[in-house]
Amino acid sequence: MGLLGGSVALTAKRALSSVKTVGYSYRAVTRRKARKIGVAGEIVNNISDCVADADIVIVATPISAFEGIFKEINKSAKSKCIVTDVGSVKVLPHRWAAKCFSGKVHYVGSHPIAGSEKMGVEFARDDLFCNAQCILTRQEKTNAAAFRTLRKFWTELGCRINVMSPLEHDKVLGRISHVPHVMAAALVNTSDEDVMKFAGKGFIDTSRLASGPESIWTDILMTNPDNTSRGIASVIKELEKLQKAIKEKNENQIWKLLSKARQKRSALIKYKMNKKELM
Amino acid sequence: MGLLGGSVALTAKRALSSVKTVGYSYRAVTRRKARKIGVAGEIVNNISDCVADADIVIVATPISAFEGIFKEINKSAKSKCIVTDVGSVKVLPHRWAAKCFSGKVHYVGSHPIAGSEKMGVEFARDDLFCNAQCILTRQEKTNAAAFRTLRKFWTELGCRINVMSPLEHDKVLGRISHVPHVMAAALVNTSDEDVMKFAGKGFIDTSRLASGPESIWTDILMTNPDNTSRGIASVIKELEKLQKAIKEKNENQIWKLLSKARQKRSALIKYKMNKKELM
Repeated sequence: MGLLGGSVALTAKRALSSVKTVGYSYRAVTRRKARKIGVAGEIVNNISDCVADADIVIVATPISAFEGIFKEINKSAKSKCIVTDVGSVKVLPHRWAAKCFSGKVHYVGSHPIAGSEKMGVEFARDDLFCNAQCILTRQEKTNAAAFRTLRKFWTELGCRINVMSPLEHDKVLGRISHVPHVMAAALVNTSDEDVMKFAGKGFIDTSRLASGPESIWTDILMTNPDNTSRGIASVIKELEKLQKAIKEKNENQIWKLLSKARQKRSALIKYKMNKKELM
Repeated sequence: MGLLGGSVALTAKRALSSVKTVGYSYRAVTRRKARKIGVAGEIVNNISDCVADADIVIVATPISAFEGIFKEINKSAKSKCIVTDVGSVKVLPHRWAAKCFSGKVHYVGSHPIAGSEKMGVEFARDDLFCNAQCILTRQEKTNAAAFRTLRKFWTELGCRINVMSPLEHDKVLGRISHVPHVMAAALVNTSDEDVMKFAGKGFIDTSRLASGPESIWTDILMTNPDNTSRGIASVIKELEKLQKAIKEKNENQIWKLLSKARQKRSALIKYKMNKKELM
């Protein structure tokens, strides 16, 4: 029950009033905060109480905790229980699910592309998923009924659904999320404290991702190393191209590279506006 | 009279009601728009009418036009006229000013760090400079009275003033503005159109600068090549460091690099909040 898990519960409470929501966090302080805010209908003190009667279990912890939690869930879950997660990486969670869940539990991957650089249940919101994309990941052996149920669930929380294989998901997310995160960190790490004081809105936005919690992001980079590393390589190549043009004062080439970027981004923004993902 | 020039005029109209504002653009269509919006008290059809009676002239064109415009201004300006600009680079403008202005005209560099990726007088706003930083650049030979007048002018428009040499300015801005711009362009140029469709707010923010007009930004990179190129080199080095840690799944090193970035940015945000530059 951090920012994401709390928001799932809050949104389910609002949008699916007949659904019973039960929350659990391994930290007592989080459970206290969650009770105070009223993030879920009930906050319980251990995993087995949380999942024993659940039709859908949503794991919203750092990725490195998934495997252990999947094993815990498997002990207490009832038959036909659907388990999903909200993690930013999908290949390994699918592998862990295949290993940890017996036939009675059905795993499907979920990745609602929403959130912020903030952390903690106090930032949970019941409108976080409004018009957000949610990527569902499935493999050949994924249970079709469980998949349909989850598609319906996220849709009712406000998401637009995309379906991918875990492999495709990790490739795409490496590009649009994990590489930008690394770039933001590199920008901040190479900027002097005294110089950054003069930063305008441009620097603030470009570096925003660097404020994300290092624990969660270390997990993400550790579980999607190949795609991220490949993405960084292609960004470095493009930076070298731009650097060469700038060094040589090749006006035409600078203009061409900046113009290409502006046009591509402008097409992206237009697409996002049409989809009402941006206002 | 684009986004920045128009905003200077609009803000002066609001905050300095006794000051007469006169605008000029070499494009007839911009002059028509500016008249319709009422960006300045008067919109005239040529530079000499615009500057002949001016105490302060603010040049807000792309940097590559400065030298020619400085020469034009010098022909028509009255004695003790103060000329400044709002460009993102300062070494070359100071050099051009020394070359183009006779003793009757006093040049001081101004760089209000405000604006957006948008372009055009229709985006001008009379609150653009509220709590924004404005860097004034001066050299030993800069006229002290002209400097004081401009400091007062920008302060009354809402800016907080910093003073630098042109050299220092271009070094700092290379870091906090020109390098992030190049990084945003590199990110977009290496991202597939189909993959970008899944982008969330993180990618949108990280890439925002890439939507800036290529004409203005080509000028900036052409006139600050050494600082920008050096900055790109250090970012590439840091990206390689992160890439190595990710490839080797060196959890401790990834965590350390991300943690450093988060802490540095968190200190920056705190500083900016205290200064009321961010809300």
